[in-house]
Amino acid sequence: MDYQKTSLEKHYEWRGKLEVTARAKVNDKDALSLAYTPGVAAPCLAIKDNPSLSYSLTRRWNTVAVITDGSAVLGLGNIGPLAGMPVMEGKCVLFKEFADIDAIPICLDTQDVDEIVAAIRAISPSFGGINLEDISAPRCFEVERRLKELCDIPVFHDDQHGTAIVLVAALKNALKLVKKPISTARLVINGAGSAGIAIAQFLLNIGAKDIVVCDRLGIIEDCCSFNPAQRELANRTNPRKVRGTLADAVRGADAFIGVSVKDALSQEMVRSMASEAIVFAMANPSPEIMPDKALEAGARIVATGRSDLPNQINNVLAFPGIFRGALDVRASVINEHMKIAASEALASLVSDVELCDTYILPKAFDGRVAAAVAKAVADAARADGVAKI
Amino acid sequence: MDYQKTSLEKHYEWRGKLEVTARAKVNDKDALSLAYTPGVAAPCLAIKDNPSLSYSLTRRWNTVAVITDGSAVLGLGNIGPLAGMPVMEGKCVLFKEFADIDAIPICLDTQDVDEIVAAIRAISPSFGGINLEDISAPRCFEVERRLKELCDIPVFHDDQHGTAIVLVAALKNALKLVKKPISTARLVINGAGSAGIAIAQFLLNIGAKDIVVCDRLGIIEDCCSFNPAQRELANRTNPRKVRGTLADAVRGADAFIGVSVKDALSQEMVRSMASEAIVFAMANPSPEIMPDKALEAGARIVATGRSDLPNQINNVLAFPGIFRGALDVRASVINEHMKIAASEALASLVSDVELCDTYILPKAFDGRVAAAVAKAVADAARADGVAKI
Repeated sequence: MDYQKTSLEKHYEWRGKLEVTARAKVNDKDALSLAYTPGVAAPCLAIKDNPSLSYSLTRRWNTVAVITDGSAVLGLGNIGPLAGMPVMEGKCVLFKEFADIDAIPICLDTQDVDEIVAAIRAISPSFGGINLEDISAPRCFEVERRLKELCDIPVFHDDQHGTAIVLVAALKNALKLVKKPISTARLVINGAGSAGIAIAQFLLNIGAKDIVVCDRLGIIEDCCSFNPAQRELANRTNPRKVRGTLADAVRGADAFIGVSVKDALSQEMVRSMASEAIVFAMANPSPEIMPDKALEAGARIVATGRSDLPNQINNVLAFPGIFRGALDVRASVINEHMKIAASEALASLVSDVELCDTYILPKAFDGRVAAAVAKAVADAARADGVAKI
Repeated sequence: MDYQKTSLEKHYEWRGKLEVTARAKVNDKDALSLAYTPGVAAPCLAIKDNPSLSYSLTRRWNTVAVITDGSAVLGLGNIGPLAGMPVMEGKCVLFKEFADIDAIPICLDTQDVDEIVAAIRAISPSFGGINLEDISAPRCFEVERRLKELCDIPVFHDDQHGTAIVLVAALKNALKLVKKPISTARLVINGAGSAGIAIAQFLLNIGAKDIVVCDRLGIIEDCCSFNPAQRELANRTNPRKVRGTLADAVRGADAFIGVSVKDALSQEMVRSMASEAIVFAMANPSPEIMPDKALEAGARIVATGRSDLPNQINNVLAFPGIFRGALDVRASVINEHMKIAASEALASLVSDVELCDTYILPKAFDGRVAAAVAKAVADAARADGVAKI
């Protein structure tokens, strides 16, 4: 199927992939008086007296805003708020279909950090959680950090954390197969944008020690060629002080983690990696190296972001369950512990018996995924005391 | 029925009066690839090249945001964003049920005019129209004025204009019954908040000449006891320079228009009005005077905001059709001409044969209303050149 052509046709047919429907039907005077004036004064006053009732008397308990500024939409770059909307609507559809969450797409007509933060903070009481989406690095780090300070509902930049959670689940299972502990594995991340930086941070949090991060200019360093987030990360990674290009970074590496661009990884580079190399080529829609090429060059386990190839590393495995779990216990945040719990839950859905080179993660449509992730996230939130119920 | 008690029970049952549903179903890999990546890149790029396609390829063509800051919710006052949500959800239900519009409730956690304007402007590309709701006067005037300058979609403060449109339709039909032309009728408005000021402006626009506006302190004047919007209006009304209280204002008046508080109008005041007096007592939920009392004191035509009494003046007669019409032709604004057209369409749904003292407006559930208002609004927008299709 020509996905681009067919998708455009389907979008003309759909005229919007979402719809708002009424749970309260208003077809006579009494119904109007109950759903609206004068009856509606009663729930209003109940919430005024006890604000937590907003989770019982309105849809807040099940509502997430999916918000972008259109600055880094898919691999398409800075295409603006209007052009970003089809992706946000699509993400909201996935929230509904995978976790029965009412998600509302919001595209912001500003790319100024202060304005983005002010607007999202202002609208935040309307929702039970905020999913930030497709906001370019390094602005996305500050937007998320400031909103987390200002809001008492979870704020979660999916391009960072969703990707990291799924990637780490896949990496743990792949390392199990090749019997290499994460604490000594040599890991290379290519792409020091929002996903790459979040993946590096997540790997450090779970005990990885030897991570080398590359960007377009090569291995990141604490120098003026790199942005503050990259410079800061450079100081906490690369313990062997490797310098140079991606080719230098991958020499002897146990795993390549690509969140970069098509064809970034050559067969020659794969040949230079350690034995039983792991290659995660997640550039969308065309991976850093095609799986057949990587395997031919000696890699043992290959994963991509694509649904038509084995081992798909797809955010849809994480974000629906993560928000479902956070909403279910009214978590005030989605913290590191909750993310790690989500990643572990995801990895453990592949049993030791099933685990093999071409099955390191559950499938996107595996019906167990969202519930398992939600439970792990909710349990972690309760254990940490960040759950309100 | 005890509406307050039953409504609270129903709100616990509903757990939110709205739901977001998926028009695009995602139940297999192909569906995921069409509604989301990689296929979704095609509609994104199409909109990037031609922004007006956001009205064909996303839900924008049918989507209105219903936005409050919680500062003047119903008659409950400044109860804040969380407590305002049941009203916003209710309004969104009415948009759906009466005009099949997808309306999204947004409650803002700020009552600062600059912040309100910035937040709404920022999120505006996500919608086809903005319905401002329950924002207190005089801030609401500036919020609306500035947003109209900044946004290329309709911005409409329903408490002002929706009320004025329905009221004026009712008044025109009532004046027709008592055979008094609007140009010479003596009109008194009690309540110089958002609705009262908008009603006065609307009446001036359609040729009323003798309007006296009162507020809590009595007849408004250009002095420091009144806010800028009231002072400005004082200079354009009250040609006979009446001074004093509401009792002074209504003496000899042909019509009383109340958007104030319970019991504001006494029987004695009604007795002092002109013969065949019109009394519109729209305070919610308890009118300025109960209809039986007003009739007993000599009024001929009485209307209220209540659904259990004759002649209900209810915004639901206007806003669904107004936005339906504006969306249908992608109007960039809802201007005076469109509002007048809506009001006339509403009035004309009561035929001369049917028109009588207890039937001056169509009923809220009259199935003809939204379509007739929408057509009038769309036609007026096209005639004015503010329609994009």
